[in-house]
Amino acid sequence: MTRTALETTTGTAALLPQMFTRYGADVNGALKSSLSSEHNFVYDTLRYAMGWTDSKGNAVAASTGKALRPILCLFACDAVGGSINKAIPAAMALEFIHNFSLIHDDIQDKDQTRRGRPTLWVVWGESKAIVAGNVLRVVADMSLEQLVQQDVVVPDALTVIEILTEAYLQMIEGQYLDLEFESRFDIELDDYLGMISRKTGALIRCALEMGAVLGTPDKRTVAAFREFGRSLGFVFQIRDDVLGVWGEPEKTGKPVGADIRRKKNSFPVVHAMNYAKGTDARRLQEVYRKEVLEDSDVSDILTVMERLGTQKQAQGLAEEHCEGALRSLESVELSPEARSDIESLAEFLLIRDH
Amino acid sequence: MTRTALETTTGTAALLPQMFTRYGADVNGALKSSLSSEHNFVYDTLRYAMGWTDSKGNAVAASTGKALRPILCLFACDAVGGSINKAIPAAMALEFIHNFSLIHDDIQDKDQTRRGRPTLWVVWGESKAIVAGNVLRVVADMSLEQLVQQDVVVPDALTVIEILTEAYLQMIEGQYLDLEFESRFDIELDDYLGMISRKTGALIRCALEMGAVLGTPDKRTVAAFREFGRSLGFVFQIRDDVLGVWGEPEKTGKPVGADIRRKKNSFPVVHAMNYAKGTDARRLQEVYRKEVLEDSDVSDILTVMERLGTQKQAQGLAEEHCEGALRSLESVELSPEARSDIESLAEFLLIRDH
Repeated sequence: MTRTALETTTGTAALLPQMFTRYGADVNGALKSSLSSEHNFVYDTLRYAMGWTDSKGNAVAASTGKALRPILCLFACDAVGGSINKAIPAAMALEFIHNFSLIHDDIQDKDQTRRGRPTLWVVWGESKAIVAGNVLRVVADMSLEQLVQQDVVVPDALTVIEILTEAYLQMIEGQYLDLEFESRFDIELDDYLGMISRKTGALIRCALEMGAVLGTPDKRTVAAFREFGRSLGFVFQIRDDVLGVWGEPEKTGKPVGADIRRKKNSFPVVHAMNYAKGTDARRLQEVYRKEVLEDSDVSDILTVMERLGTQKQAQGLAEEHCEGALRSLESVELSPEARSDIESLAEFLLIRDH
Repeated sequence: MTRTALETTTGTAALLPQMFTRYGADVNGALKSSLSSEHNFVYDTLRYAMGWTDSKGNAVAASTGKALRPILCLFACDAVGGSINKAIPAAMALEFIHNFSLIHDDIQDKDQTRRGRPTLWVVWGESKAIVAGNVLRVVADMSLEQLVQQDVVVPDALTVIEILTEAYLQMIEGQYLDLEFESRFDIELDDYLGMISRKTGALIRCALEMGAVLGTPDKRTVAAFREFGRSLGFVFQIRDDVLGVWGEPEKTGKPVGADIRRKKNSFPVVHAMNYAKGTDARRLQEVYRKEVLEDSDVSDILTVMERLGTQKQAQGLAEEHCEGALRSLESVELSPEARSDIESLAEFLLIRDH
């Protein structure tokens, strides 16, 4: 992707690439049918967490995420010439695991709302939220049992199970590292990037790798999609970090400097901690030692970041990874449509505004 | 097993059946090597949780459980004529899953100690304990990937994965039900038994079923071991409930009436709630509505239970399931040694004192 291509699309930053609508219905249909057949009351909490029902179990206008991971999985399978039906079980597993991790994350961060609604632990209490998250994690595993019913050969099914298990382990190791980094001032940028490549990157990478495995026996193609996913994971998370500090409140639903105020480990903070000198460095440490941050603290940090060019550095790194992502797939034979999808996707992740 | 056999062994109630020493070293060796190769610091918390190290990561005299589930798994495989090496990965997965569930249970119950040491969440905080539990759960999954290395054929490996996933789901559904039952006075005995058959029973049943699957292709034998495990799960939990109320403090490490004091859902309480009448019923409800129970509350409940013959009823039900367990295996061809092991095991679970 050239810089020009990037700049010309900046005006449509908020538009979801077409692949989201192309595969969205398949993904949502499969997810819903998987949880709706269960009448056990644990599943009320899960349907709520997925955004389909209110806390009484009544259907509501969906309040779901973008289903990025399952969409990526179906796309990769489709792009390499596979049948997307084969990738549906893996796509479901990804979305369930993602939502499981949100349920547990919200307990850990004591977050009260998600997608505009009270979090699961706020409604049902921490104990049930821990267990409900664990149930969703098993529902994910059970989705994979459908691989064989979709005519996936057993060795491929085992490979997919291994890829997902490995990625899932990396994801939780990343969560643990993230907790370990809390209230530390000595995190190097590379440590931070290593953490997000696990915490967020692993599942995105594995979405593309599993989709490719299920679509083609060609190991080189699979490796290229894996590499594509690895870079895309960085683009996704670094852009997320940029939005968490400089996103427009009416788009992100969060106040300016939201991630600074909640003292979230993110690229901008780690960048500022690493490069601030003198009074700026002292002010940073002083602010990050406080229990609760005031408006003036947040605006001081924003000023330090402006002096350091933190936003430009972050967005620049995301662009590098975006270009790396596209390079990974250069040598893979793909239809012009697939290649155009890939460019739209990478650009979207780089410039999205929410 | 005849009642006479039972009575004659009562004097040796605390002796672990010989199978625990026979398979114990294999189990512990496999578990330790699986976690010791990992240097990532999450694993410090896990080695602590398994009872092998202190909170600084230094090796300590082991403070582990009995490893009941992995022992059962190896035994079943051995008893039906299989090679126990094939069952080692499944045995490891069972013990890791069991310990994962203890880590999360301790957070939910706010339990401060386990096996005489501070619980993981007390040492590392709730957030890290949630994540560490999740990591142990994946370590369990990854153990199963070793099945194929142990020459287990792929269809058997997939069957084992499905059996464990299903049992694991039942276990957490049981945990959710248990939370749902808290502070309710209308739990029927059958509801309670349904809950424990999931919460505790599922993993015990699955230990024996997986062991049998890995040892023999004969489906009738596998079904018999599954049924044996189902009954044994009831024996285990009902005896556990009896010990939680009437166990000898110097054996169990808990004060008399421990489970009453902490208002734990258990067979004796549900029995008393179902059968107490008049003033007894009112006193029960009054006590169970209190935040904190006094000594006099505990002793009043014990008096009510004595009037109702609760202990005898509980132990009687455990005996029925014990006899049912042995009947399940009557038609299976087993060596005299295996049959004797089975009787020792069933009796041990029925009369153990800690």
